[in-house]
Amino acid sequence: MKFIAEIDVMPLKALLDPQGKAVGMTLTGLGYSDVQNVRIGKHISLEIEAASKEKAMTVVNEICSKVLHNPIMEGFEYDLHEV
Amino acid sequence: MKFIAEIDVMPLKALLDPQGKAVGMTLTGLGYSDVQNVRIGKHISLEIEAASKEKAMTVVNEICSKVLHNPIMEGFEYDLHEV
Repeated sequence: MKFIAEIDVMPLKALLDPQGKAVGMTLTGLGYSDVQNVRIGKHISLEIEAASKEKAMTVVNEICSKVLHNPIMEGFEYDLHEV
Repeated sequence: MKFIAEIDVMPLKALLDPQGKAVGMTLTGLGYSDVQNVRIGKHISLEIEAASKEKAMTVVNEICSKVLHNPIMEGFEYDLHEV
């Protein structure tokens, strides 16, 4: 079975996010004053071949923990659906 | 009403995504040979104050088109939910 994982890796809420702050200030400057709390992270999509959804989730979890995110600064969440 | 927009800005499918390719090759090298088609883009979350969901969607669309994505290289999609 083939799955697609849509992964979001975002800076932890407790940390300052300079990139998000910069974009937020730009938007305010452009007149979008109703926009707040801009935070910017990474979005990763990948295809994975696995025997079951559980197995695919285990692998995606492992990949996120070991390779894709830095636990000191970032958190991750993902969504897995069958193709 | 307050909404949260979760925006994904991804490299267009027709274009090479060097960052995704690099991560894909790293994963293969680490033994995750069942993982393919890794693509990496940005994930942006923001809060927006608007009178209705339609108005919030109009603003988010405008922000994505004008500020957050480069139409030559990237596409965007988003999800809007009330807080």
